[in-house]
Amino acid sequence: MADRLTGGDSSLLRRINAAVTLRALRTGHSVTLTQLVGETGLSRPTVEGVIEGLVETGLVAEVEQPREDGQPGTGRRGRPARWFRFRAEAGHILGIEIGVHDIRVILADLTGEVVGSHFKPVDETLDAEERLTAVRAAVAEVLRKAGISRDNLWAVGIGTPGIVDREGTIRLGTAMPGWTGLDLGARLRRSFRCPVLIENDANLAAIAEHWQGAAVGADDVVFVMAGLSPGAGSLINGKLHRGYGGAAGEIGALHLLGQEVTPEKLLSTTGKPLNPLDEAAVARVLRLAREGDEVAKVAMDRFLTRLVQGVAALVLAIDPQLVVIGGWAAGLDGVLEPLRERLAQFTLRAPEVALAALGSEVVSMGALRVALDHVEDQLFAVDPPRV
Amino acid sequence: MADRLTGGDSSLLRRINAAVTLRALRTGHSVTLTQLVGETGLSRPTVEGVIEGLVETGLVAEVEQPREDGQPGTGRRGRPARWFRFRAEAGHILGIEIGVHDIRVILADLTGEVVGSHFKPVDETLDAEERLTAVRAAVAEVLRKAGISRDNLWAVGIGTPGIVDREGTIRLGTAMPGWTGLDLGARLRRSFRCPVLIENDANLAAIAEHWQGAAVGADDVVFVMAGLSPGAGSLINGKLHRGYGGAAGEIGALHLLGQEVTPEKLLSTTGKPLNPLDEAAVARVLRLAREGDEVAKVAMDRFLTRLVQGVAALVLAIDPQLVVIGGWAAGLDGVLEPLRERLAQFTLRAPEVALAALGSEVVSMGALRVALDHVEDQLFAVDPPRV
Repeated sequence: MADRLTGGDSSLLRRINAAVTLRALRTGHSVTLTQLVGETGLSRPTVEGVIEGLVETGLVAEVEQPREDGQPGTGRRGRPARWFRFRAEAGHILGIEIGVHDIRVILADLTGEVVGSHFKPVDETLDAEERLTAVRAAVAEVLRKAGISRDNLWAVGIGTPGIVDREGTIRLGTAMPGWTGLDLGARLRRSFRCPVLIENDANLAAIAEHWQGAAVGADDVVFVMAGLSPGAGSLINGKLHRGYGGAAGEIGALHLLGQEVTPEKLLSTTGKPLNPLDEAAVARVLRLAREGDEVAKVAMDRFLTRLVQGVAALVLAIDPQLVVIGGWAAGLDGVLEPLRERLAQFTLRAPEVALAALGSEVVSMGALRVALDHVEDQLFAVDPPRV
Repeated sequence: MADRLTGGDSSLLRRINAAVTLRALRTGHSVTLTQLVGETGLSRPTVEGVIEGLVETGLVAEVEQPREDGQPGTGRRGRPARWFRFRAEAGHILGIEIGVHDIRVILADLTGEVVGSHFKPVDETLDAEERLTAVRAAVAEVLRKAGISRDNLWAVGIGTPGIVDREGTIRLGTAMPGWTGLDLGARLRRSFRCPVLIENDANLAAIAEHWQGAAVGADDVVFVMAGLSPGAGSLINGKLHRGYGGAAGEIGALHLLGQEVTPEKLLSTTGKPLNPLDEAAVARVLRLAREGDEVAKVAMDRFLTRLVQGVAALVLAIDPQLVVIGGWAAGLDGVLEPLRERLAQFTLRAPEVALAALGSEVVSMGALRVALDHVEDQLFAVDPPRV
């Protein structure tokens, strides 16, 4: 992608000058050559050369821009001012969630502006091949609707449950058939010519809430994906903490230490198993508990005890500023206050607790942000890109 | 301290040149002016100017150095080569542990080479004033024995149990009388003219084991201070993770979630409380358990269950490469194997587990390392110092 940026010339200096110039343009507003010279600190001939290259590669366009008084724009010496803008539409990125019950794809331009999305419910029993086929179909659909060519993609971010290693292999993924051991990175890189970045879903949710949700401005954040076997993603100093083996935050196994009730019995009001991923059934129990149903209240209390156990472990280990609770679309508001109370009781320094703000798109938005980070490293970073 | 470095001239360029030159000298070996020019990339006149300033401030000394063939050293043009060395003895640093039962002070030169130490047992009932008086006496004693003036100290690192905030106030410290709320930083800064850096003891133990102990080469480490109410310190990417409020790793409260036996009953073989900090009593129970005493084995198992619970919470939350167990001088070797087995059972990705290597000096060594980091930031950092 460095080649796209400098038109094939990979000299470090030209790359840096291009990055500095693009940074000055990334605001989205049109800017004059003179303004660019002022903002970049580069010489006018250098900026002219850089801009020429960027126009050639399609990243920058020259635009007509009238003066504010409506007269045709002219420079002080009578030469008309030249205006340029960053062509955010020069490339696109995808954020994808591969979940148990649904596949979500978000398409955005090079500034992260969303230009298309697609949601596709899938059956939880799909095997890995069927699920990958569904992912490819969803991607094709979103590209088709937006009229964007696959070759125009610069980066793809993907989120999925399980422990994901740095190369994109699912080390452990019990939520979906055939997921453990799958080399998801290699499989999906065949479908794209651009970098494909794969990450655990709770990790991406933490990134998304920090980007646009409940954790904006908080750099030490734990996002708890409140399934019945909770998982979590953590940001430390604003950066994702993956752990040495990508398993950080996988606190779902903690209850095993206490030999307590199995996850399937936690929210059950009938004694029969209740599928932890059946959101409708879960929402029903949480609603009944709010309405005062005694059996549901006991089930809710079991669930809360498990959740507090996991969250307290995370809070004691990491001491975040903020805990964000999400993962189910509805029904979690009743959880917030008891969780705050119990955390204050069991931790030495209680963090703030907030509900997730981004809803069911949180994982795909996090995936989009990871893809955008990659693109921004390529476009705007003066340091060598982290490829 | 920037002034010490550049002789009062605070120009950034001179500071950087001095830092670059000192870095080339820090190996401890004597180096010629010509070698310094080669290693720093600076011009000969610049290096000469920098060296002159460093000799004036006492940080560098000119030394006589024969050539390897034993002949008097001469340059190619017949001019004698000038040799210089870093004067590590130009300043000193202290690493101090303020513990429940003892106060330890380590004195080192500017390269971290230990030149003196002092150990002083104290009573656990001492109030804060008495404890601080004992600290001051121990410091005076180690300086007196080494013949070092207090004015020659460049930085002091201090470790103590409890939650310590960034300014050095003990937010919570239940192990010692009068410790909670104590502004330890302000109190001890009066005794020294140099920076005083205060940190939680388990955090310093993690730093020390990473520097010179069982965690050398591992950058994602959890050190578990295996008291009966375990605390921990974590390094993430080689850097201390303090947490948003300095409380990261304080997992001692975790057992409250299970309403289990109190810490004092854990290792008791009599039903009566056993003081968790009475190392001799603890060591006796652990030894009895190793020798097959049935009652002691049950007590040991209770202790192990608690330890595994705390360590598993840390491992699931942080996913470190390595867990180092320490905190008691003796008796922990029998803990290692069962801990490994249970962690493998309860975590998704089991870390390596090792015994601490540094023994009873681990906290004071960590404090020394923190003081040394501060000095190295001042002397060798090309970036602005982190003061």
